[in-house]
Amino acid sequence: MTPRNAADSVLQVWALDGIPEISAGTDLAAVITEAAAGALADGDILVVTSKIVSKAEDRFVTADDREDAITAETVRIVATRPTPNGGVTRIVQNRLGMVSAAAGVDASNTPEGTILLLPEDPDASARAIAAALRERLGVEVGVLVSDTLGRAWREGQTDHAIGAAGVRVFEDLRGGTDAEGRPLVVTMPCVADELAAAADLVKGKASRRPVAVVRGRADLVGPLDLPGARSIVRPLERDMFRLGADEAYAEGYAAGAASTPRT
Amino acid sequence: MTPRNAADSVLQVWALDGIPEISAGTDLAAVITEAAAGALADGDILVVTSKIVSKAEDRFVTADDREDAITAETVRIVATRPTPNGGVTRIVQNRLGMVSAAAGVDASNTPEGTILLLPEDPDASARAIAAALRERLGVEVGVLVSDTLGRAWREGQTDHAIGAAGVRVFEDLRGGTDAEGRPLVVTMPCVADELAAAADLVKGKASRRPVAVVRGRADLVGPLDLPGARSIVRPLERDMFRLGADEAYAEGYAAGAASTPRT
Repeated sequence: MTPRNAADSVLQVWALDGIPEISAGTDLAAVITEAAAGALADGDILVVTSKIVSKAEDRFVTADDREDAITAETVRIVATRPTPNGGVTRIVQNRLGMVSAAAGVDASNTPEGTILLLPEDPDASARAIAAALRERLGVEVGVLVSDTLGRAWREGQTDHAIGAAGVRVFEDLRGGTDAEGRPLVVTMPCVADELAAAADLVKGKASRRPVAVVRGRADLVGPLDLPGARSIVRPLERDMFRLGADEAYAEGYAAGAASTPRT
Repeated sequence: MTPRNAADSVLQVWALDGIPEISAGTDLAAVITEAAAGALADGDILVVTSKIVSKAEDRFVTADDREDAITAETVRIVATRPTPNGGVTRIVQNRLGMVSAAAGVDASNTPEGTILLLPEDPDASARAIAAALRERLGVEVGVLVSDTLGRAWREGQTDHAIGAAGVRVFEDLRGGTDAEGRPLVVTMPCVADELAAAADLVKGKASRRPVAVVRGRADLVGPLDLPGARSIVRPLERDMFRLGADEAYAEGYAAGAASTPRT
């Protein structure tokens, strides 16, 4: 990894102006290229909200299918909780491996009567946009696709990277040493998620500023075939929270009850 | 909340130079004031790494007490996992309410033979620093204390806010509407965590740049008595992941087995 130089000492983050309403079939790479022309430099990282990627990729389904859509996107139910209005919140793992509420199925900021699924393959979406920007503008940029996710243990949501191309998603310090010379054994900052979080600070949820640029971490930008955001998903066998506490307790209870023959 | 103005359209993030090695008893507010003098403006947000707060507050304990120190800091064990070298990783809730590995007990970048506990009350630490900066430099700034935390379901770590003063930790959009005019019912971005994440991008884990400044979200800065980072901790009764899956299963199994009389 190249060291950061003096010109990188201030990180700058801003939202691109001039992104029009995106609809099914919009050439998103062309739209972003036009909005970003003249504004980008080598090493810039664009953070594109998954919503506009989904819209461009026509991931709309009709709104009365919301529960069905969540079910279709769900690979595995992690936890459920009744909502105050009599519904059920489902925390699920979706086909992208991500754990989130409602499988990322999104009913806000979409045309009346429609809901939006996540992009089919956000890493591929990021790669297509990055390739177009590199070719058309002649700048070596990275692209992240971001989504707003809740977290275990902490209230509120933050933006995370669900797609990545041409950006290192982890800053791997495991081989390095700290300032005292001791090995940094377990530190592996997920810089892709930190970049997505930084970008959210300039986007504004309710305004239409779905693309941000981060300048100042050119050291993270590299070839388009770097590992994507899929590599951020923790494998199930390493996941201590693969089931909600109530769900795991219930599974255990049933197994325990079955283990003892009834009188 | 005041609207963001044109001058805020680029978020800038940089690390302060000139922070010396911090040791027990260092007047951290004075050190930061000196390093930041002339560089701060109203509405700036400082993100201070918890490590230097802990050092200044003399939260050192001797290194051979590491497991004891984790136990002492632990309010509740959430999950445990054997490590490859025969030890045990403990995911615990500490006395601050935070869920993290090893209760935040830190053995990197500390003098040989010592480990470091988290600050006693990071919200109070943030308040003291913010009050000193406001008084001595005459600028209305906010202060976050940050810590590096692992996450459920996702690999790697990101920085989070564990202390806050004079900064809104949530951007509450729940009363607002989206661009289509529909209520944004559940969106409550945890901007404090996003600011901590952005700051980490300029700090570098192994270099001594433990204080960052974020400029461009003056709308989030307010009175020193705004709710602190403690308010980010999800209450236990709302926490679907209050126990690891294996631990909850084991509890359920025992209860299930006990529920059925043996023959």
